[in-house]
Amino acid sequence: MKVGIIGASGYGGLELIRLLHNHPQVAKIDLYSSSEEGKKFSSKYPFLTKLYDRPLEKIDYDQLVNCDVVFASTPAGVTTELFPPLLDKGPRLIDLAGDFRLKDPKLYAHWYGKSPPSIDSIEKGAYGLTEWNRDEIRNAQLIANPGCYPTATLLSLVPLVKARLIDATQIIIDAKSGVSGAGNTPGRMTHFSETNENLTIYKLHEHQHIPEIEQGIRLFGNEKVTVTFTTHLIPMTRGIMTTSYAPVHANVTEQDLVDCLRQTYELSPFIRVMTDVGKFCTKQVYGSNYCDIHVKVDSRTNRATIVAVIDNVVKGAAGQAIQNMNVQFGLDETTGLTQVPLFI
Amino acid sequence: MKVGIIGASGYGGLELIRLLHNHPQVAKIDLYSSSEEGKKFSSKYPFLTKLYDRPLEKIDYDQLVNCDVVFASTPAGVTTELFPPLLDKGPRLIDLAGDFRLKDPKLYAHWYGKSPPSIDSIEKGAYGLTEWNRDEIRNAQLIANPGCYPTATLLSLVPLVKARLIDATQIIIDAKSGVSGAGNTPGRMTHFSETNENLTIYKLHEHQHIPEIEQGIRLFGNEKVTVTFTTHLIPMTRGIMTTSYAPVHANVTEQDLVDCLRQTYELSPFIRVMTDVGKFCTKQVYGSNYCDIHVKVDSRTNRATIVAVIDNVVKGAAGQAIQNMNVQFGLDETTGLTQVPLFI
Amino acid sequence: MKVGIIGASGYGGLELIRLLHNHPQVAKIDLYSSSEEGKKFSSKYPFLTKLYDRPLEKIDYDQLVNCDVVFASTPAGVTTELFPPLLDKGPRLIDLAGDFRLKDPKLYAHWYGKSPPSIDSIEKGAYGLTEWNRDEIRNAQLIANPGCYPTATLLSLVPLVKARLIDATQIIIDAKSGVSGAGNTPGRMTHFSETNENLTIYKLHEHQHIPEIEQGIRLFGNEKVTVTFTTHLIPMTRGIMTTSYAPVHANVTEQDLVDCLRQTYELSPFIRVMTDVGKFCTKQVYGSNYCDIHVKVDSRTNRATIVAVIDNVVKGAAGQAIQNMNVQFGLDETTGLTQVPLFI
Amino acid sequence: MKVGIIGASGYGGLELIRLLHNHPQVAKIDLYSSSEEGKKFSSKYPFLTKLYDRPLEKIDYDQLVNCDVVFASTPAGVTTELFPPLLDKGPRLIDLAGDFRLKDPKLYAHWYGKSPPSIDSIEKGAYGLTEWNRDEIRNAQLIANPGCYPTATLLSLVPLVKARLIDATQIIIDAKSGVSGAGNTPGRMTHFSETNENLTIYKLHEHQHIPEIEQGIRLFGNEKVTVTFTTHLIPMTRGIMTTSYAPVHANVTEQDLVDCLRQTYELSPFIRVMTDVGKFCTKQVYGSNYCDIHVKVDSRTNRATIVAVIDNVVKGAAGQAIQNMNVQFGLDETTGLTQVPLFI
Repeated sequence: MKVGIIGASGYGGLELIRLLHNHPQVAKIDLYSSSEEGKKFSSKYPFLTKLYDRPLEKIDYDQLVNCDVVFASTPAGVTTELFPPLLDKGPRLIDLAGDFRLKDPKLYAHWYGKSPPSIDSIEKGAYGLTEWNRDEIRNAQLIANPGCYPTATLLSLVPLVKARLIDATQIIIDAKSGVSGAGNTPGRMTHFSETNENLTIYKLHEHQHIPEIEQGIRLFGNEKVTVTFTTHLIPMTRGIMTTSYAPVHANVTEQDLVDCLRQTYELSPFIRVMTDVGKFCTKQVYGSNYCDIHVKVDSRTNRATIVAVIDNVVKGAAGQAIQNMNVQFGLDETTGLTQVPLFI
Repeated sequence: MKVGIIGASGYGGLELIRLLHNHPQVAKIDLYSSSEEGKKFSSKYPFLTKLYDRPLEKIDYDQLVNCDVVFASTPAGVTTELFPPLLDKGPRLIDLAGDFRLKDPKLYAHWYGKSPPSIDSIEKGAYGLTEWNRDEIRNAQLIANPGCYPTATLLSLVPLVKARLIDATQIIIDAKSGVSGAGNTPGRMTHFSETNENLTIYKLHEHQHIPEIEQGIRLFGNEKVTVTFTTHLIPMTRGIMTTSYAPVHANVTEQDLVDCLRQTYELSPFIRVMTDVGKFCTKQVYGSNYCDIHVKVDSRTNRATIVAVIDNVVKGAAGQAIQNMNVQFGLDETTGLTQVPLFI
Repeated sequence: MKVGIIGASGYGGLELIRLLHNHPQVAKIDLYSSSEEGKKFSSKYPFLTKLYDRPLEKIDYDQLVNCDVVFASTPAGVTTELFPPLLDKGPRLIDLAGDFRLKDPKLYAHWYGKSPPSIDSIEKGAYGLTEWNRDEIRNAQLIANPGCYPTATLLSLVPLVKARLIDATQIIIDAKSGVSGAGNTPGRMTHFSETNENLTIYKLHEHQHIPEIEQGIRLFGNEKVTVTFTTHLIPMTRGIMTTSYAPVHANVTEQDLVDCLRQTYELSPFIRVMTDVGKFCTKQVYGSNYCDIHVKVDSRTNRATIVAVIDNVVKGAAGQAIQNMNVQFGLDETTGLTQVPLFI
Repeated sequence: MKVGIIGASGYGGLELIRLLHNHPQVAKIDLYSSSEEGKKFSSKYPFLTKLYDRPLEKIDYDQLVNCDVVFASTPAGVTTELFPPLLDKGPRLIDLAGDFRLKDPKLYAHWYGKSPPSIDSIEKGAYGLTEWNRDEIRNAQLIANPGCYPTATLLSLVPLVKARLIDATQIIIDAKSGVSGAGNTPGRMTHFSETNENLTIYKLHEHQHIPEIEQGIRLFGNEKVTVTFTTHLIPMTRGIMTTSYAPVHANVTEQDLVDCLRQTYELSPFIRVMTDVGKFCTKQVYGSNYCDIHVKVDSRTNRATIVAVIDNVVKGAAGQAIQNMNVQFGLDETTGLTQVPLFI
């Protein structure tokens, strides 16, 4: 397979390179850039010396149509323009940005503050939450790869909502992310001296992933919900934890929740449901495509605390994108994604 | 004033030394230890060279009764034995441990797994949440200094519960703490290679601070509540953030919440209520006795998110203990506690 | 005393505010800015709420001349213009930038790539390495406060060079700094995701502090030297360690070095010479004005390893600046600088 | 191939599992433990769920002799007893500990404070610095895998010593390591609250890797040397940087050094010699088996600064061990070791 990556300089792009480099079905990776073409890529990123010493290439439709698959890891708004002309021209398109995720263009306009793509192109896109949308993904020309927060949130909540075990009208999601989620552009929020040894809450109730989470629960869990969602910046580079709270329905036990999760994901190699853990942490998935889920019912309040951890750059971005590519091309879902977590 | 500190080697004790060293009314600080007497303290902690080169002293009641105030920063169970014989013997007693916090000895036995102190000694103790209990603190022989999590939680929630602005039956508290809260004994949870670049949730629904929070809301907010409370370990040394969620009552606005908080703490120098902040973080109180509070109502769900940050070792421990000492001795509450936060 | 600070938004300026806020002789602190005048300072930095809610003031000579002392913490080049007109007009001037440090204007031009100040103004300035230049500092109108690396390096090496105990022709300095030394402007070198969990060597042999170190050894140690100096970025916010290597002269013992350091600094309250330490670290001076020094002779090679640690923002910048102010105004050197290190 | 790992619970062992899991020639990995046999390994380390749910096995010679290769990652002293009986019994033995590294048993006794292995078994061992000892490694029954510090030091210094470009009598090595090098046993040096935001120098001139470095320079560089070596603990988990200093011989240029390194390692896939880099850091090899080398001559002092970075757990331990296994079994050296660094 010949793979093209647009936006290789960003963290999503760099992680695609890291993972695809050892993918047994990928023969060639071309990197495209609108702003840095011609530049030897390992000069910019010395860690890629010997691995990617070729220059970035100009974004060129004639080149792109010859790829089997084109990934884009670009700021919101770019693929809105870039992808529609490539539809049905050959390559499968996998978008790591938010452009095609929301089915309702008004929601995109509202939460992203940008013009949405055409209805037609949105409809051609499949929402790439692999474990819940394999059939649609398999046949889609365009995949809208989920956001990092929605990935962890939906994988852990959807089974319980769908099985009507928790009260979906009262879901509260307290999300925490490592700093790499903010991307590679330096700024105040990512300035080491003000981020290290610090814990920040930001974008309370205003994060653009909120409508994506609500859409996912509706699509896959069959419940229309409005959630409370807050986001925290953790002084670490990789990792997301979502701690979600919801009342359990009458007579539902912790074991019911565990059983539901286990059965739902019985055939999903990347989901690990964990019980009997004294602690539960992001590092247990570091560098890997796993999503680990832990659930506990507070018997004093009859509320469930549902916790999910992912590596935001892998399962929350590049890893899930490759998982989707594998589905599209009829490969085993785990192909090229068998990295063991770096616990230390 | 002559001050004695029992348990100086722990982080609470070290912070008492840091803060009391520059307290204008403290003439002498004696450090007592049951296990390390006779040892030059700056040999153990070179950062105290030139500051505390004397040895630790043996715990001796004849010495302790000559102190004006005795602080204890010891593991749960120690002051249960140590403090009652000192009651009414002269020194004011300030306990940074949990022994005397819970008024109901059965709760202490249940959540701490230890024998509670005598009813008599519990009744003589005042719960040291300074901003809510100044009158009782002023006259008490024994202060039960609050836990770090309860301090942040209660300071931010009690005013809103008391004013009946939020639905106290549905309070969920997602708490996050730096690692110093785990104390100075090395262990798996505090081992750098497994804590750095990691985010851990632990003791879900089982933290011993839960009954203390419920007791505080009942005592000061006049509502009997059962809360959901979870705790997360953040890869940083100092700082606590509590993110609390509760529905607001009908017709209550965000401004009502802000006004309530502002009015409640108008005369409390260490409480800062903040609005219009894009981000809100633990480092804005680092090394200081401030508790900063931020509240925002999610208009889509009518739930309030109430956030509080403190330095767990200062306002969450040694700083509040000194604030209580100031109240007891008729000093300005801020005496010796005017440190500006180390934002960087 | 009335104090003015130019460049309050930078980390040097913020630390001046932190330390001067509790200085017993400072009655008023005015903050001046060329770019952010009129802005309420605590809006920019919420950690200063209740502490500095006034706006920044426009840089105005009529105001500045009414100050008793004016600190500048500005990028190189600014005080070259700003300070000469204020000379002999009233206020003592203390420059935290590099403009007036190098006595040889050609060296400044070469290493800083900027036009040097006038010879006249350079000559009026005293190099502010307090422990070695008290007499000149006391009477100077203008203090060139030392760089952070030179402070640690000179304090630890000068006594040994001056006493001819080490071979000054072979000095190698391996310097390590926390990230706050890079200032508050976001950039690649300070971007959390690329700085955290990373150790970087930068500016090998090219750091502008090299001529300052060589000048200091010549001025105070009476030896003309050329040193090898490298700098490393450590994933922490505060702290500098300089590890210096030099052969000891024949028959010189480790005890000779220790004795020399102890005697040299017998009356210097901020210098602590430490022996018998299993480990020696930057956190033992965190947030304080101490410079701790440790020396060990390698009996196998007859080389001494001389280690110094400071808090780069305190003794390496704002703290030493205040120490110099104290000397200028006849105050005890430690006035306002008695902070105990935050070891945890 | 059937692989056995003794000491799987330690960080060297965990990293062997991580890397061997995807090694194309490894069919089975058995984990042996003297203290934790029978315990499901993923219970202890939940990050290995689905990956290693089997229990640890008892150390049993009958089992071990059936392995093709046995790795040991144990504290010093264990393989001294454990390995000799397995010599010539079938499995290749690869020791990640220090027991068999020093050819002179007196040096081992002195620096490790333990009884050395028998002369006979030491002589049968090959020092596993792959790039310099391939022939001996290929045929050896027992590999003494190098220490982490010696790996970085020797790979960067040996070529320059051997080519007589630098003055080997004056080598000074300032080494810095992440905390994982201290292993998985909690203690003061690895306690998060005292390690985070801190930089520590430890074991000045006394590290047990000193004789190993001197032996390596003598064996491969053909010079008998005595080096000055110090070690620093960096607040990060993975990564080693060695900054070495030595005068260059007359008329030797920086380009000579670069050329020497490039030619030496022309056929060594894991060594990357870098020039023209503004900064040079440990993260460029994170999680990979690369050793990156950068050299710069200080024209003012005619000293070279030679910098090497490795991931201490990979090239400094488990990765190099597997590289040696590959050499022993006639595989391409990079088999199973093609991980791209995790730069972010």
